[in-house]
Amino acid sequence: MKLKVKDMDIATGGILVVLVNEKDAEKFDLHHEDRVSVKKGRKKTTAIVDIGESDKVVKPGQIGLFEEVVDELNAKPGDIIDMDLEEKPKGVDHIKKKLEGKNLSKEETDEIVREIVERKLSAIELTYFIAACYTRKMNLEETVNLTKAIVKYGNKLKLRNKIIVDKHCTGGVPGNRTTMIVVPIVAAAGLTIPKTSSRSITSPAGTADTMEVLAPVELTLKKMKKVVQKTNGCIILGGGVDLASADDKLIKLRHPLSLDPEGMLLASILAKKAAVNSNHVLIDIPIGKDTKIKNKKEADHLKKLFIKIGKKMGMKVKAIITDGTEPVGNGIGPALEARDVLWVLKRDKRGPKDLEKKCIRMATDILKSAGVKGAGKKVKDILENGKAYAKMKEIIKAQGGNPNINPDKIKPGKYQYTYKAPKSATITDIDNFTVSKIARIAGAPKDQGAGIFLYRHEGQKVKKGQPIFTVYAENKTKLKYARNILKKIGEIRVNHTYL
Amino acid sequence: MKLKVKDMDIATGGILVVLVNEKDAEKFDLHHEDRVSVKKGRKKTTAIVDIGESDKVVKPGQIGLFEEVVDELNAKPGDIIDMDLEEKPKGVDHIKKKLEGKNLSKEETDEIVREIVERKLSAIELTYFIAACYTRKMNLEETVNLTKAIVKYGNKLKLRNKIIVDKHCTGGVPGNRTTMIVVPIVAAAGLTIPKTSSRSITSPAGTADTMEVLAPVELTLKKMKKVVQKTNGCIILGGGVDLASADDKLIKLRHPLSLDPEGMLLASILAKKAAVNSNHVLIDIPIGKDTKIKNKKEADHLKKLFIKIGKKMGMKVKAIITDGTEPVGNGIGPALEARDVLWVLKRDKRGPKDLEKKCIRMATDILKSAGVKGAGKKVKDILENGKAYAKMKEIIKAQGGNPNINPDKIKPGKYQYTYKAPKSATITDIDNFTVSKIARIAGAPKDQGAGIFLYRHEGQKVKKGQPIFTVYAENKTKLKYARNILKKIGEIRVNHTYL
Repeated sequence: MKLKVKDMDIATGGILVVLVNEKDAEKFDLHHEDRVSVKKGRKKTTAIVDIGESDKVVKPGQIGLFEEVVDELNAKPGDIIDMDLEEKPKGVDHIKKKLEGKNLSKEETDEIVREIVERKLSAIELTYFIAACYTRKMNLEETVNLTKAIVKYGNKLKLRNKIIVDKHCTGGVPGNRTTMIVVPIVAAAGLTIPKTSSRSITSPAGTADTMEVLAPVELTLKKMKKVVQKTNGCIILGGGVDLASADDKLIKLRHPLSLDPEGMLLASILAKKAAVNSNHVLIDIPIGKDTKIKNKKEADHLKKLFIKIGKKMGMKVKAIITDGTEPVGNGIGPALEARDVLWVLKRDKRGPKDLEKKCIRMATDILKSAGVKGAGKKVKDILENGKAYAKMKEIIKAQGGNPNINPDKIKPGKYQYTYKAPKSATITDIDNFTVSKIARIAGAPKDQGAGIFLYRHEGQKVKKGQPIFTVYAENKTKLKYARNILKKIGEIRVNHTYL
Repeated sequence: MKLKVKDMDIATGGILVVLVNEKDAEKFDLHHEDRVSVKKGRKKTTAIVDIGESDKVVKPGQIGLFEEVVDELNAKPGDIIDMDLEEKPKGVDHIKKKLEGKNLSKEETDEIVREIVERKLSAIELTYFIAACYTRKMNLEETVNLTKAIVKYGNKLKLRNKIIVDKHCTGGVPGNRTTMIVVPIVAAAGLTIPKTSSRSITSPAGTADTMEVLAPVELTLKKMKKVVQKTNGCIILGGGVDLASADDKLIKLRHPLSLDPEGMLLASILAKKAAVNSNHVLIDIPIGKDTKIKNKKEADHLKKLFIKIGKKMGMKVKAIITDGTEPVGNGIGPALEARDVLWVLKRDKRGPKDLEKKCIRMATDILKSAGVKGAGKKVKDILENGKAYAKMKEIIKAQGGNPNINPDKIKPGKYQYTYKAPKSATITDIDNFTVSKIARIAGAPKDQGAGIFLYRHEGQKVKKGQPIFTVYAENKTKLKYARNILKKIGEIRVNHTYL
């Protein structure tokens, strides 16, 4: 069927979609979500059909192309497109099989992941896949297959180094910016650590958001390779180098219900490590009330799986369970966290000790895992003698940032509100959820200067009138919003001493 | 936040969606699929947020309204809208609960269904709900709650009659047009039968498609009531009177994977009966290779559930398991089926005997269930003495059709292809799937004259050169497509004697 192109001027954000008038759809017995091939000259692709019920947007004889299809076909308004029926992608059958509770083979998993990357599966079909993996669970073999498939159909960083180390944190603890201290220590120790991180989705800052205060993080794969070859490490945004393209698409659809099917979570993390050829990986699993992993039992279970799947992927995985009951460090929000990190690296006494201690432990574990002798002393030396800081400057420079940035020049937002102790007391509880919520409402992570600075941690004493925390915002309205939320939460959570 | 309206000129087909520029989304910490309230003057509604990544379609400060939102707010391009954050609908939490394997309470089910009808749940969220009900199953109580909720939040037909009967077929058998014979018989016997049917989704014709050859089927609820009050019966499209609005939205999303979660299937069918106040319902469950219900075991299981749930809904349900191995009747496709139906009612000897026999059985069952004495004889009399035909003419007239239509004037498509026996043989298998596929490719149900006429049924002998079936189409190309498919299928399904 020949149809005339109309450019819809709308991007779906991934999936290839064409809009066809109802009358043309009938002629071809086409339904919503059916597949068609669309061809212009030698260019051809497969798209999902959306049906327009009126002639308002797309008339009979026209075909509305969403941006992704326009790009694939290099089509212009008025071009003639040849549309034909296409079979449903095979992945749909496999997804249904999984929904019915049957296990998927390696080939079936491969096919689903390939079709995700080729944008052949619709959002509805992918949602069914996530729901199937969530309710039916994935066994070890399926999880390994999914991990391998994500790696297979994504970009890969090819380095010749024999030992490549990596780290990951399962998340949920504000301020926990270990990557930006561990990477320079480990790289200064001579190990290769091509670290990719994500931006925040629901927290006040992801590592990529915080690193961006110091240097660009959206690098190409080629540039990433250069940085790592030069400095032994990098701290960049994973999404930009497409190491796990299928995974990025799944995560988007897991968000509306905050679903974390275990197999997908594991595959998502380990695929990104496998894609950079890591063979020694440290996983930090913080547990606490508002962390992703809720308790010791869950953490132990996950730890075992990480090790098992890592082994099947040719990785030596070490997983540590850490305290995630309260924020790590003092600054929360990109600028405040970046300042904490530089203070620790520069050996400034304002550097938060809890963050430093945790990073030393993690760097030591990584060095040990890679067979470095006297790891503990080496890590401390590297930090103390300024080699870690020098390495961080190298990395910042290689990524295109200013290596000589002075942490005291990193200014938090100029609108501030400081909460002072109404009476002398001991801090019993600093709630991760509340801290995150307020920092986000204040503007973090998009407003780099927004966030919270904690003067005290749990268990510490405070005298009447002493500051407990300051909220920073880049504009007045957001500070007001944050204060309002603070009041509201304060009223609800009366059992918490502060925050 | 104040934003200027841009009319997107696109209908989503149900859900309320607004498009916001990425920069504005950031200001409010809005994510894809988040909810906002949008207000213009006194008019206010809740919509789901879509985020535009470029300034191409919606600039900062603008808000793109899809048609449903334009209608709700009566908004014009350039109007100023007040947008505010809104909590996620509570249904989302309940859906997640069900995904986790926990049962839903009556209140939770009510809330989900209400939010479906109010168009507050997105397609992704509803897909998760369907997947949850499919994988976690629904118990009897949950199914009853869902049925009641669908009735509660849909339209209702209010009649004063004490006894209201109804029928339903679980489907999958081409040509099985019993409704159009059973309804006039039952109505002529003095019982009230306000029958709603659907259009075909994947079959060559739904009852609504076939009835439409004889009379309009898209009636308002008011008109439906008038027809039933006048004639005791009707044969109309259910979707038009919105008896189960929530169900219609769920069915749309079950289609891509052809998912029929048992509880939803039961609720979907019985809610429509409850909405017209039926208290005696006959369910026809045909079984065969390509029917919806595959075997006796499945059918028996479903039969029990129909009866149990019916009881809880105050309905006396009788379910019969019938032979669905081959098509019922000779004509397949709207016009050909309508002609079969009229031939049976007019006592023309060309009326297919298998269809007639099945209808007599079903009408007798319905009369018996409603306590009519001598039901079997009465049904045969009504058919023989022309009262059923007279009743059908009344119904056709009341719905706005021509009651004097001559079945021989109903012409099938003029492009025809007749398949003749290449040798003398016995017909061993007529495959429902193949018959449906070919009739649809030939143009059914949209082209009313398209379809297949079967000269023989399974078990019958045919001599070399005698016709076995004719394919009808309304245009040459579609007949060619159908013949191509016939060849292709013939090659694959060598084990089938014909078709």
